[in-house]
Amino acid sequence: MKKTELPLLVSGTGESLNDVQHLTGFKSVSRVVLLKLENGEQHLVVPQAEYSRALRNARSSFVWTPEMLNVSSRNRNDIRKWITAILAEKNVKRVHVMADFPHSYALPVIKCGVRLDIINHSIVSGRSTKKPNEIRRIGDTQQAAVIAMRSAISLIQRSKIDTDGTLKQGNHHLTAEFLRKFIAKILIDHGCDGACSIVACGQQTEDPHEQGSGVLKAFEPILLDIFPRHITHGFWGDITRTVVKGRPTPELRKMYNAVRAAFDAALSTIKAGIQAKTVHKAVIAEFKARGYEAEMKDGLLTGVISCTGHGIGLSLHEDPIVCSDPVKLTSGNVLAIEPGLCYPGIGAVRIEDLVEVTSDGCKYIAPCERKFEL
Amino acid sequence: MKKTELPLLVSGTGESLNDVQHLTGFKSVSRVVLLKLENGEQHLVVPQAEYSRALRNARSSFVWTPEMLNVSSRNRNDIRKWITAILAEKNVKRVHVMADFPHSYALPVIKCGVRLDIINHSIVSGRSTKKPNEIRRIGDTQQAAVIAMRSAISLIQRSKIDTDGTLKQGNHHLTAEFLRKFIAKILIDHGCDGACSIVACGQQTEDPHEQGSGVLKAFEPILLDIFPRHITHGFWGDITRTVVKGRPTPELRKMYNAVRAAFDAALSTIKAGIQAKTVHKAVIAEFKARGYEAEMKDGLLTGVISCTGHGIGLSLHEDPIVCSDPVKLTSGNVLAIEPGLCYPGIGAVRIEDLVEVTSDGCKYIAPCERKFEL
Repeated sequence: MKKTELPLLVSGTGESLNDVQHLTGFKSVSRVVLLKLENGEQHLVVPQAEYSRALRNARSSFVWTPEMLNVSSRNRNDIRKWITAILAEKNVKRVHVMADFPHSYALPVIKCGVRLDIINHSIVSGRSTKKPNEIRRIGDTQQAAVIAMRSAISLIQRSKIDTDGTLKQGNHHLTAEFLRKFIAKILIDHGCDGACSIVACGQQTEDPHEQGSGVLKAFEPILLDIFPRHITHGFWGDITRTVVKGRPTPELRKMYNAVRAAFDAALSTIKAGIQAKTVHKAVIAEFKARGYEAEMKDGLLTGVISCTGHGIGLSLHEDPIVCSDPVKLTSGNVLAIEPGLCYPGIGAVRIEDLVEVTSDGCKYIAPCERKFEL
Repeated sequence: MKKTELPLLVSGTGESLNDVQHLTGFKSVSRVVLLKLENGEQHLVVPQAEYSRALRNARSSFVWTPEMLNVSSRNRNDIRKWITAILAEKNVKRVHVMADFPHSYALPVIKCGVRLDIINHSIVSGRSTKKPNEIRRIGDTQQAAVIAMRSAISLIQRSKIDTDGTLKQGNHHLTAEFLRKFIAKILIDHGCDGACSIVACGQQTEDPHEQGSGVLKAFEPILLDIFPRHITHGFWGDITRTVVKGRPTPELRKMYNAVRAAFDAALSTIKAGIQAKTVHKAVIAEFKARGYEAEMKDGLLTGVISCTGHGIGLSLHEDPIVCSDPVKLTSGNVLAIEPGLCYPGIGAVRIEDLVEVTSDGCKYIAPCERKFEL
C-alpha cells in the first residue's frame, strides 16, 4: 500500500471485503470495518462470530469486536456504530474512504465531526500491483481455467456434425448447458468455482454477457469464456476462446485472424511504464489496418469491441482498465487482454488471456494454445 | 413494492443489483442505475454492452444507455454522470436511496440540488415478501441442496471407521475437501453453484464460518452447511445438518436433541403477524429449559448461537432477520431457521431448513429427513 497522508477507513460489501483481504489477509464473509492509521497500524472490527478466525488469520492487525468497543448490545448489529466507535477510540478526525463507501455510513461519521475524503480505490489499496505470491495464486486459478478450456474444446472437437448442422456427442446433442456443467465440474476438481461460464453459439455471441443456451452448431462461432475464482484464496482467472466446428466462413476466418493480430499487437506494446491507452490504441490500429472499426448501427456499437482489457486479482475486473483512460502500467500488473470483433448476423470473435506486466514486456500467466477450426 | 412517496434511485454493487433484478427482472452483471418514479415508471440506465439484453429482459422499464442520455464519451464509464443525467432527464429533485448507496455517488447528486433520503431497504424493495414464482425458485435451489445433503450424508454413512477413528472410503481417507467437491458437483448437475459448502469436523465446527479441512473423524460432530445459488435465476437455498459417524457422546446427543427441540419450538411459533423476535425467544426458552444459555467465555460467546434465522431470496441473508430486532412476519416471507449450540472442546450442533411463512403457520420449502448417528 502506498503511503497516504490520512488514515484509511474501509467498510461495506463486495470490493471493500476484497480490500480488507488484501490489506490484512483475512477473508471475511460478514461486513467488517478496517481502520488503517498513518503509522500503518491496522484496526479490524469484526462480529463476535468472526473474532477467533480473524485473530488467527488477520496479519499485523488489532482485532476488535463491537463489544470490546463498548457498542451497546442494542446496537451490536449496527455497523455504523462500530465505525464511529473505532474512529473515537483512535481519535481520528479525518479519513480517506473508497468510492464504494456507503452514504448511510458516511452520514453518522460526518455528524461526529470526522471529515471524509473519497480516494481513488486502486491508488490506496495498491491492489493493482501484484506481489509474486499473488501472481502465483492467479496462476493457480488460470491453470484450472486452461485445463477446463482444453477439455471443453476437445469435447467440441470430438463431436459429430449432424445433417442439420447441430453437434452431437454419441446419441445426444451437445448443448451449451451440458458444456457449462462439464466445465464447472473440472473447475471444482481443481479447487475453483466457476459455474457461470459463457458457452454461446452463433448470434448468441453478439451479446457479450449472454451465457448461451441450446444445442451448439457447426460453421458458427462458439464462444467460450471461463472465469473461475479459487475457493480457498479467492483470486480469479479469465480466459476466452472462439472456435468453429467444421469450416468457418471466410468472413469469420478473417475476423479471427484480425483478433489474433490485435492480441499480438497489444502484447508487443505492453511493458511497465507505458500508458494502458497505448495498448488499447495499438489494438484499434491493428483492427483499422484490416478494415475493422467501431461503428454505431441502430443505436448499438458494433465492430471493434470497445475495451481491450482489465486488471484481475481478488476481483474479476479491477484496475488498471486497458481502454482510453490515462493510467500507467507497472511491473506486477496482471492484465486480462481481450480484443474482439462483433457483427450482427455473424457473431463475435474474442480471444482472452492473462499476462503479467514486466519491466521489459509481459509474460503469460498460464499459456493455452489457440485453436479455431475444429 | 410498497408505494413510496418519493422516487427511488438504485445503484451500486451487490445488493443493489439484486434490487434491480427484483424490480425489473433484469439480471445485470455490470453496474446499472434504476430510477423508479412515483407513478411507477421505471428507467434503467445500462452500459452499451448490456443494452440489448436489458431491452429483452427488463420488464416495464424504459432502457437507456449513457449515450442516449447525452453523457459525453469522456464520461461514458462514470456512473455518477449516468445518475445525474437520468435525474435531470426526469426532473427529479428528491429521491430515496438504500443504505448501500455509495457516498461517492451521493455527493454529485447533492451538488446538483437533489435531496437524498436513505430508506430502509426491505420496506422499499418489498423483497422480503416472496411471490409464488419466487418461492418456487427458492424451492428449485433448496431441492438441489437437499439432494446434495442426502448424497453427502449417505457417503459418510457408507464410510468405515479406521482404527485411529478417521473415516475411510475404500482405501482413501474421507476428507472435508473431497466431500465439498462431491457436493459442489451434485449442485452443478442440478443447475446450482455452491462450491464453498461448510464441511467441518470436531473443533472446526466451533468457528461458524470455518469451511473445514482434513480427514473427517468418527464420534465427533460433522457439520454440513450447503448454501447454493441457482445459476439461471439467482435465488439461494440453505440447509445445515450435523451428523456423527459412530456413537456420539451423551453430551453431544443431548445437545442434538435440544437443537431439534429448539427448531420445533421455532416452527410452532412462526405465522404471519407475529414478531420475528417471538420466534427467537421461543428458541431461547426451549434451550433454557434444557439447561443451555448464551454465555461469555474468555471474551467469546458460547452456548446458544445468537441468532435464530434470516430471510433468503436473491441474497443468502436478507430481511427479515429472526433475532431480537422488532420486525413482523408476513405471509410469503421465506426464512432459514437455524438454531444451534456451540461449546469449546465439543463443537457445534446446528440444524437449518427453509420455511415459508403462511397465514396460520409455516411450511417447509423442501423437506429433508434428519439423521444424527450414522
